[in-house]
Amino acid sequence: MAKIPHRLYLTEDQMPRQWYNLRADMKEQPDPLIHPGTHEPLPVEALYPIFCEQLAQQELDTTTRYFDIPEPVLDMYKLYRPSPLCRAYNLEKALDTPAKIYYKFEGNNTSGSHKLNSAIAQAYYAKAQGLKGLTTETGAGQWGTALSEACAYFDLDLKVFMVKVSYEQKPYRKAVMQTFGANVTPSPSNTTETGRAILAADPTTGGSLGCAISEAVEVATTTEGYRYVLGSVLNQVLLHQSIIGLESKQAMEMLDEYPDIVIGCAGGGSNLGGLIAPFMQDKLTGKADPRIIAVEPASCPSFTRGKYAYDFCDTGHVTPLARMYTLGNGFMPAANHAGGLRYHGMSPILSKLYHDGYMEAVSAKQTDVFEAAVQFAKLETILPAPESSHAIRCAIDEALKCKQTGEAKTILFGLTGTGYFDMSAYEAFHSGTMTSHVPTDEELAVGFATLPQVD
Amino acid sequence: MAKIPHRLYLTEDQMPRQWYNLRADMKEQPDPLIHPGTHEPLPVEALYPIFCEQLAQQELDTTTRYFDIPEPVLDMYKLYRPSPLCRAYNLEKALDTPAKIYYKFEGNNTSGSHKLNSAIAQAYYAKAQGLKGLTTETGAGQWGTALSEACAYFDLDLKVFMVKVSYEQKPYRKAVMQTFGANVTPSPSNTTETGRAILAADPTTGGSLGCAISEAVEVATTTEGYRYVLGSVLNQVLLHQSIIGLESKQAMEMLDEYPDIVIGCAGGGSNLGGLIAPFMQDKLTGKADPRIIAVEPASCPSFTRGKYAYDFCDTGHVTPLARMYTLGNGFMPAANHAGGLRYHGMSPILSKLYHDGYMEAVSAKQTDVFEAAVQFAKLETILPAPESSHAIRCAIDEALKCKQTGEAKTILFGLTGTGYFDMSAYEAFHSGTMTSHVPTDEELAVGFATLPQVD
Repeated sequence: MAKIPHRLYLTEDQMPRQWYNLRADMKEQPDPLIHPGTHEPLPVEALYPIFCEQLAQQELDTTTRYFDIPEPVLDMYKLYRPSPLCRAYNLEKALDTPAKIYYKFEGNNTSGSHKLNSAIAQAYYAKAQGLKGLTTETGAGQWGTALSEACAYFDLDLKVFMVKVSYEQKPYRKAVMQTFGANVTPSPSNTTETGRAILAADPTTGGSLGCAISEAVEVATTTEGYRYVLGSVLNQVLLHQSIIGLESKQAMEMLDEYPDIVIGCAGGGSNLGGLIAPFMQDKLTGKADPRIIAVEPASCPSFTRGKYAYDFCDTGHVTPLARMYTLGNGFMPAANHAGGLRYHGMSPILSKLYHDGYMEAVSAKQTDVFEAAVQFAKLETILPAPESSHAIRCAIDEALKCKQTGEAKTILFGLTGTGYFDMSAYEAFHSGTMTSHVPTDEELAVGFATLPQVD
Repeated sequence: MAKIPHRLYLTEDQMPRQWYNLRADMKEQPDPLIHPGTHEPLPVEALYPIFCEQLAQQELDTTTRYFDIPEPVLDMYKLYRPSPLCRAYNLEKALDTPAKIYYKFEGNNTSGSHKLNSAIAQAYYAKAQGLKGLTTETGAGQWGTALSEACAYFDLDLKVFMVKVSYEQKPYRKAVMQTFGANVTPSPSNTTETGRAILAADPTTGGSLGCAISEAVEVATTTEGYRYVLGSVLNQVLLHQSIIGLESKQAMEMLDEYPDIVIGCAGGGSNLGGLIAPFMQDKLTGKADPRIIAVEPASCPSFTRGKYAYDFCDTGHVTPLARMYTLGNGFMPAANHAGGLRYHGMSPILSKLYHDGYMEAVSAKQTDVFEAAVQFAKLETILPAPESSHAIRCAIDEALKCKQTGEAKTILFGLTGTGYFDMSAYEAFHSGTMTSHVPTDEELAVGFATLPQVD
């Protein structure tokens, strides 16, 4: 019998009590958020109408290395954390690789993903500020579910604008959010000026994430006691998600392990930034030098084919500009693209680290990703989310390289969530109707043309 | 801070390595399975054409107290077990009760329920016997999913007959099973004599569990190298599910706790029998005297309004007769009844224990059950399955009684699974269209009229 368990759960007492802020150890900082009109850096006060104050401060804080996790946040974390660090014995055996494969599994909660880690923090700070409620947008629904859980727990109102096509195609996601008391509105809606304008122009539109963001921001900034929250991209979200990496590192230390390679899927960067945080710290401070690999869809390749440029964080142009790897806010990923990871940009922190050579990025085709997902499900019995399966694909590829070279590398990847609500994509894969779109340079040029002119 | 954690996970080393057979400590045994024609007790050989040999032996073994869990079964258990013992601090606080409420959560695996515990054992024994594959039926799909996972892991073929109306209403359940490589056929089908006969009589039928069982048994007994497996009711299933109770008892001992009340939902009895096993042992052997409560739907009240009589285990009359609490094999629960727990009978072991006064039974109305489910979800962040929510309802009721009497009782209930695939029922609850059917005595008489004549 192997001594390393299949699943290692830290105890409540061993759970990290602080989040780690990567920026405190970065030699060069990401470029600041700037105003889309003046191009001046935004002071923290400019963010207060949108975000609650503590979160706005976290967003701009580049020096505080550790933030205490508030006690009520820790209490809610204890309902589903620490999450298990898993050893993929069966996958290793099936691949016949000398590599050791670990994954940190974030899917054992009702939202089905890591999104809950930041939803709880954001809901708590809103409650602590005495706010009445929050607004947000959701596409596939994982973020909306996570925030619904957090708002139910902290007794906050929640208005979710759900992209209309998802609202109609995923009625059960809506029902989960309603079970937790959230008010879910299909977007575009008649409840906002933005929504009414879009509906007037095209009454049959299925909506878009950009439109849903605009509606959510409009309601937050025009309703007394409300603020807007976002589940990825933001620096504050990466801060909260550092719990993933901190737990992973601590669990690996208990097993006398340290990863040679850390792999995470990359959409807006919330999981990737959280998972790699303490390992990147080691890299930035010269303590260790693991390879860190971001995996993105070939159909939405921000890191591998995007530009490092100032861009809007949304497609509706209601946000400040951030410098990041981006395909242009007008970029539209292929329609058959499954699940999340369809964001045009990327976390500014991760963009800077990638730009400065601290991490690698690869892209994976959709059919290759689902092939890895099905192989993993059969061997490890967890049905992975399409997003997470990008990391599985890369971990398998790296383990197969180890088989060729005979190297017994230690691989850690992030399994961000489960795929119960993505079965239509699995069905397309099984029936052979799934395709893998790789945008042409001409298609990418359409997106790049929407980048704003800065300096 | 309380010293008892929100979730307690045993380590791999602490995991039970044996299943416990309740019958070894019962002073009186359940009546034997008998042949429907001769009414003679069935010898073990009579079961071999249907069940694989080791399982047939477990089915009839009344004396072996502990069975070693085979190493390959333990290995697969380690992919999702030990399951957490949870303290419902938030629920206790919201109810303002002096009671301590614990629940054993079996939903953290892809099947979403405890069903996997027996599916793995049954698939392993089939593989060990050198069989090629298994057949089964599934309604809502949890059992079919669990068995698909187990068969993928042990490299066995699996043919699932899924009630046609569920096959059409729950396409994603089917897709999950297909991801694990199962062959899923809507029942009735043209692939069996039974199916063809039923289709000839009514080409538009939506099918029934009874019909699906008949098709699965027909295929198993007429195909070389195949056997039939069932996810509940059987003695062998209760044996495998004893892992739930054994882990619960061990975890509670580590916390210096022992339950005053043990509560489980009851359909065919697999979860209830597994959860209560070691506590019932204490009761049978005089070591302790906890109250043990079965909770069943008011719309399908086998224990509370059924007869203790010999009956077919299926509605298609292909099985032997078992003496159990039953509503009659022709009983049809109300159409609006959500989720599982719609079985006409009950585990013969549990039926005997109930008949002999070792346990209590209560029934709960569907709307009351969903009210408890939503309250629990908001406080504990787990979205419970409708089945599990029957136990939640009863635990809340008992905790509220403690509030009235001031008694600080320790309550343990089984949270058998998650409700992600039951959102249409939650939607009906939210929209106010859910009703609670309680059958009239006249309606029950229709079911009782289908009981076979024995002595």
